[in-house]
Amino acid sequence: MIDITLLGTAALMPLPDRALTAVFLTCAGRSILFDCGEGTQTAARKAGVSLMKTDLIALTHYHGDHIFGLPGLLQTLYSLGRTEPLYITGPAGLQEELAPILKLAGWMPYEIVLLPFPEEGLRPETLAKGWPTEAKLTAFPTEHRVPSQGYCFTLSRAGKFLPEKAKALGVPMNQWSLLQKGQSITVNGTVIDPDQVLGTPRKGLKFVFSGDTAACPALIDGASDADLFISEATYGENEQAALAVDHGHMNFAQAASIAAQAHVKRLWLTHYSQMIEDPAEYLPNAASIFPNAVCGEDGMRLSLRFENE
Amino acid sequence: MIDITLLGTAALMPLPDRALTAVFLTCAGRSILFDCGEGTQTAARKAGVSLMKTDLIALTHYHGDHIFGLPGLLQTLYSLGRTEPLYITGPAGLQEELAPILKLAGWMPYEIVLLPFPEEGLRPETLAKGWPTEAKLTAFPTEHRVPSQGYCFTLSRAGKFLPEKAKALGVPMNQWSLLQKGQSITVNGTVIDPDQVLGTPRKGLKFVFSGDTAACPALIDGASDADLFISEATYGENEQAALAVDHGHMNFAQAASIAAQAHVKRLWLTHYSQMIEDPAEYLPNAASIFPNAVCGEDGMRLSLRFENE
Repeated sequence: MIDITLLGTAALMPLPDRALTAVFLTCAGRSILFDCGEGTQTAARKAGVSLMKTDLIALTHYHGDHIFGLPGLLQTLYSLGRTEPLYITGPAGLQEELAPILKLAGWMPYEIVLLPFPEEGLRPETLAKGWPTEAKLTAFPTEHRVPSQGYCFTLSRAGKFLPEKAKALGVPMNQWSLLQKGQSITVNGTVIDPDQVLGTPRKGLKFVFSGDTAACPALIDGASDADLFISEATYGENEQAALAVDHGHMNFAQAASIAAQAHVKRLWLTHYSQMIEDPAEYLPNAASIFPNAVCGEDGMRLSLRFENE
Repeated sequence: MIDITLLGTAALMPLPDRALTAVFLTCAGRSILFDCGEGTQTAARKAGVSLMKTDLIALTHYHGDHIFGLPGLLQTLYSLGRTEPLYITGPAGLQEELAPILKLAGWMPYEIVLLPFPEEGLRPETLAKGWPTEAKLTAFPTEHRVPSQGYCFTLSRAGKFLPEKAKALGVPMNQWSLLQKGQSITVNGTVIDPDQVLGTPRKGLKFVFSGDTAACPALIDGASDADLFISEATYGENEQAALAVDHGHMNFAQAASIAAQAHVKRLWLTHYSQMIEDPAEYLPNAASIFPNAVCGEDGMRLSLRFENE
């Protein structure tokens, strides 16, 4: 299961009901925070999620409305007694862009590791205990005015356990659960691997966050078949399509078009310009292209679960 | 008249109903912002005050919970089209402490002037047009763990205009208003100064903000006879008096004792530790020492007016 909480839906400046960009992901009790605009701490408290469990902060880019919540969060984690290392990753420029943030935050009793995002992706289990081995985070390049990337978090799912195969291989029943958990075992001197007793891998789960970006092919690739795609949708009007491109953003219709082309299951719109008073007014511009689009709101939450099969 | 809006009442970490420290002062349409913790922008919007009119940001010290709202505010003022210079002042270390803030905020289309606080105080009229000549800001040293200062904002008030004196000096009635406004005039080649036609100066207005501090004599001096004294009161329990001193803070009772010794008119408590769920629970600890004490809340507002006389 993956729990997603959209913490902030504002762009550029915080508003009373819209904190700046932040998305919180929890899986097996461990967490990743995507972006950390001003107000993220308060938004997390309102939403009832604890940022203390954050192992990794994955930044989409270094504009202020996505990172100015960091110095305060780092100090709060200190105040709350954090001792576990905290990893922060992001696109090119991480060290340089984070330097003034770390300077402001000051000395910390826990380690802050600035981790350039690995090209092959990142297994959160390598950062902290408790993450499922099936979890993986990858990044894809986006088109903003500065180095930027979106993120995919996937949870793969092994095939069904096939008792008849285990029996045929002579595996005692008390060792079946080890194979189900993905561990190899030895039976009468012979190594039995999980894939010998499991069916074909089943559909896993995929969550995708766009960050700030214009519509681009890499975003369609990145978002393909996502169970939940949270996409920036800075502008509401269809007539703002060219303006959106100029600013490295999307309007509601462009975000919906990406969702449709990527065959995602659900689209949540976010990162609304402060000119948008009520995002719901513009929802038809997205829903006419991708019906399963909804307007994100601060604190909106969804649990993604494996399909029954 | 001086309008005071208490924007944030939290210490250390922001809470859903408590933004971090910020106090907004407006006088004759111009404004000073005291401190700028994370969440100040949102708190200002909730309170219905516009930070665009801020000429000066006066910092009490450079701890994160008092300054981490700055980078975002500086960028928002840019987005909203500010062109007027913005002055920022504070205790020793201003340049060094603000360097990472300015680095994060990036290039601005308006001038940011880091202004070491002048020992003799500051007349806001020297910073921007529109401030009354009677307005003055002074600072007093406080006792925190780092260089820190509290602020007094005063609005002096001339004596009553005495028509019989003006008549005796031969001042034509159409020039009385100039003298009332504090301008000298010339009548038949003789210079007439305002104090020749005004009674003794009347009681003005005084607003004082403590910043973070332990109880100390300078705070009593600074707050003396204030019409409104906003004081930090980090801890609620009387038994936390020694703890408060150790941390360079006060409890409710210590803040009330300062207010009583300084003979202020009203005391607003603020800067509550996150351990204090409901400040009102501890109000008796202050009110038993200084009856005119109230618990500050985000968005609390008061207009200080000259007495009728």
